[in-house]
Order: sequence, then C-alpha cells, then structure tokens
Amino acid sequence: MANLEKENRLILVTNDDGVDAKGIKYLTEIALNFGDVVVIAPDKGKSGMSHSVSLNEPIYIDKIKDTKGLEIYACSGTPADSVKIALHKILKRKPDLILSGINHGSNASVSAIYSGTVAAAREGSMNGITSIAFSLLSHAPDADFSAAAKYAHIIIEKVLENGIAKQTCLNVNIPNVPENDLKGIKMCRQTLGKWIEEFDYRVNPHNKDYYWLTGKFSNFEPSAEDTDEWALNNNYVAIVPIEVDLTSYSALKDLQKWDFKF
Amino acid sequence: MANLEKENRLILVTNDDGVDAKGIKYLTEIALNFGDVVVIAPDKGKSGMSHSVSLNEPIYIDKIKDTKGLEIYACSGTPADSVKIALHKILKRKPDLILSGINHGSNASVSAIYSGTVAAAREGSMNGITSIAFSLLSHAPDADFSAAAKYAHIIIEKVLENGIAKQTCLNVNIPNVPENDLKGIKMCRQTLGKWIEEFDYRVNPHNKDYYWLTGKFSNFEPSAEDTDEWALNNNYVAIVPIEVDLTSYSALKDLQKWDFKF
Repeated sequence: MANLEKENRLILVTNDDGVDAKGIKYLTEIALNFGDVVVIAPDKGKSGMSHSVSLNEPIYIDKIKDTKGLEIYACSGTPADSVKIALHKILKRKPDLILSGINHGSNASVSAIYSGTVAAAREGSMNGITSIAFSLLSHAPDADFSAAAKYAHIIIEKVLENGIAKQTCLNVNIPNVPENDLKGIKMCRQTLGKWIEEFDYRVNPHNKDYYWLTGKFSNFEPSAEDTDEWALNNNYVAIVPIEVDLTSYSALKDLQKWDFKF
Repeated sequence: MANLEKENRLILVTNDDGVDAKGIKYLTEIALNFGDVVVIAPDKGKSGMSHSVSLNEPIYIDKIKDTKGLEIYACSGTPADSVKIALHKILKRKPDLILSGINHGSNASVSAIYSGTVAAAREGSMNGITSIAFSLLSHAPDADFSAAAKYAHIIIEKVLENGIAKQTCLNVNIPNVPENDLKGIKMCRQTLGKWIEEFDYRVNPHNKDYYWLTGKFSNFEPSAEDTDEWALNNNYVAIVPIEVDLTSYSALKDLQKWDFKF
C-alpha cells in the first residue's frame, strides 16, 4: 500500500459523532491529501455505541455529496454498521485505509471499549484494512482541531509507509492543547482504569424515576509512564495498538491446568 | 470468595436477550444454588449491542419480583448499562459473582466483540468482580438449555473454587447437542475469523431503499485445535478468557521503533 500513488488510493472516513461533526470534516480534509475519499458515517451522534451492530433495525443510506474524489453518505446505523455497509455495498473496491474520527472527546484507557470511533477502526482491521481512530481530548462541538489535524497527517503518512500488524488498528488520542505545547508522539499500552459511575437520579413529568449515566474516570496507575493516560497528561499524542483478539493468554495458561469433575 | 458460604453470596444475573428470555431463567435457577440472586437485565432483546452504554437516553428500572433470595429488575438500557446501574444503584453491596446469559446463540470467535452478553461480563471484570458469560449455540427462543445448565453449574463451581485472573472474564460457549454427545470442557483462544456480511437489500412501502444486516461466519483457521470454534465443532464446551486490556503488545514493540519527522 505504501507504494500506491495518491490517485490510486481509496480512503474510507467514518466516526461516531455523526456525519456533520466538525471533527470528521477535518479528517476528511486530511484524507483528501492522500487519495480519493468516501465518507460514510452515522446520520447523527452515536457516541458510546461500542462495536454494536443493527440486528433488528433496517439500515438507511443517504447520499449527501458526490463529486470527483469525494463522496459523502449518511448511515442510519452504528459506526460499525457504517463500515460494514461501506465495504459490502457502497465502495467500488476494498479501501486502502480507514480513518475514524476525529472524535470529540478522549477514547483513551477503557473508553476505547465504549467508543464507536475505535470500534469502526477495529471493524476495518477485522476486514484486513489498515485502520486508525483519532480522538481529540475536547467534547466541545467547536473544538480547535488544528493541532490534531497536523498530527493526524504525520501519523497517516507514517502508517502508509510502515503499515500496521494484521488484525490490529491504532487508537490515537490527542491532548487538547495548543500545538506548541505538544511534546511529540508516544506509543503506549491501554491504561488500567475504569469509569466511576454516578447515576444522576431524576423523576419525569409522569412521576416515573429515571437515571442518567454520568461519571468520572479513575486511573488505577497514574504514574505508569508507558500508558496512554500518562502520555496525554504529559502533552504527548498517545497511540495504542488495539487487537481484534480479546483472549488473555496469561489467564489461558492458568485455566489449562484446571481439572473438571463430572 | 471461594470460602463464602452460600447464604452470604450475592450473585448478579444479566443477559442481552432480555429479562424474559428462556436462557436467563435457566441461569437464574442455577445461580440460586450458589447464593442470593438479583437479576437486572434489559427489558427487551438487545443482541449485537456490544459494550454500548446509554449516553443520550435516560435509563428506567422496573422491579418485577422481590422475594427472599431473588429480586428481578428490567432495565431500559443496554446489557453494560444493566451491570453499571446494578452496581451503583440497585445492589446493596458489591456482588461476589456476575453471570451473563445463557445467550440464545453463539458468542464464539469475533462474535464475542459484537455480543452484549460478553460485554456485560467484561463490565463486571472491569469492576473487579468474577464474571462469566454463557452462550448456547442455538438461536431458538425455546432452545433446550438442560445440557448447558449442567455445564454452567460445573463451571461456576470451579470458578468459585479457583477464581479468575483480574480484569479478565470467561466467555463460555456450549454446543447445541444432547448432553451425552458433549465431550467435556476445553480452554481455548478466540478463533481468528470474521462475518462475511451480506446485506439484504429491500425497498420500503414509501419507495425508500434499505438494508438488513445478515451474513455468515468465516473461520480463517478451521483446523486450529486450540480455538473456540474447533472445540465447539468437536462437541466440547469452549471457554475463552477475555481481558479488558485491548493492547496488542506484539504490535506495540514494533511501533516503538517508529521515528516521526516533524
């Protein structure tokens, strides 16, 4: 793929914030430097959808733009649905690259598990396509993506040159600081942590109790310098390679010693 | 935990097929042999929801049953939501065990990624709770869960005795064959494969195109005897330990050699 000329490269762009989000517009502009671009993204925000797929809902696709080198489609389904239908119904051939994002908000540590943006990239790697998820650490709809865009460009260039291991995608998170404050790029492992959920309890106008999911992130290893959270807190762009295989091989070794009685 | 007496053990039961599914009723009966049980599960089928959480929807909880040793609640959210709200709002204390399923249909290989049943167990392990997902290889609403129930009981007993590694849950899949045909239990790794998606194209009564997601599983390594798909095809119950950490450590080693130019 590294040898493909720009005019022969086909790039799929998606996200989980929806086809109209500012972040995907930045990512589309970056992608256009590297080849022809087809954007297929959810028709509205689908944050927190993880790797969900629509088994019981029909999926609608609307063409929004169709110009030379750039097509844009809105998909009624999830981010993973968008990648699936792109690969199987919309794109004329298998794309050379899938870019997901730029997400409004962090997908570091365990947020990678809940993220539709990361899942879309993982769906790409499951299909043998080089895939990268990008996220900026700001939830603001009008966040400043300029530094993120510069780093995304540099990372895409390097990925096209070097490639990524099979069944693996990259989860890139970018601190929300001015470009001059960014210290560089760090390859990291996923931080051990969890969301401490605090459900906001309310009563609706019909006198029925309900809850909103909220909460804050708790880092179990804040001083571990090889983690993505440490990198981000120290103004590095953090890249975690994420694999499709969920198996814990260390746990497997222990389990294989178990002896069941029947 | 292994030393806890039955009367002191608290078990959370959930699934992704909904609180009324046959599979969760079987799992609840099994769980009652091991302690007090609280069932909190989606109010309707939520298959294919993966690890999604409700960020933009309120969550409603309805109490269905409240007897000594058994409470049942329906949750309007996803399987992961159900576990989160159970831990933070419903249960009087942290449970000793989370059981998810018994799912109607396989969650082997990459289906573990799309599965709400497996995600619920992973949410448990993220919170430091011993968690197991069970699935039977039959989608039938009236599937025969008797052999699955027997094996689930044996596996739970062993897990209570031995424990599971931290940040790891078990993904148990059970062949849909009569009990006498089952050959035993095999500890496995996740099979490398993918769903070959075939979208079913239709036109709705308002003349708008739509698609249904469908497809069949493609096994990339059908003769690999250490995989869950091989075990299931050979009538073994397959157990894969699944970890929260998505990092590919082999890919990380390569990435750390990359040199970025600015």
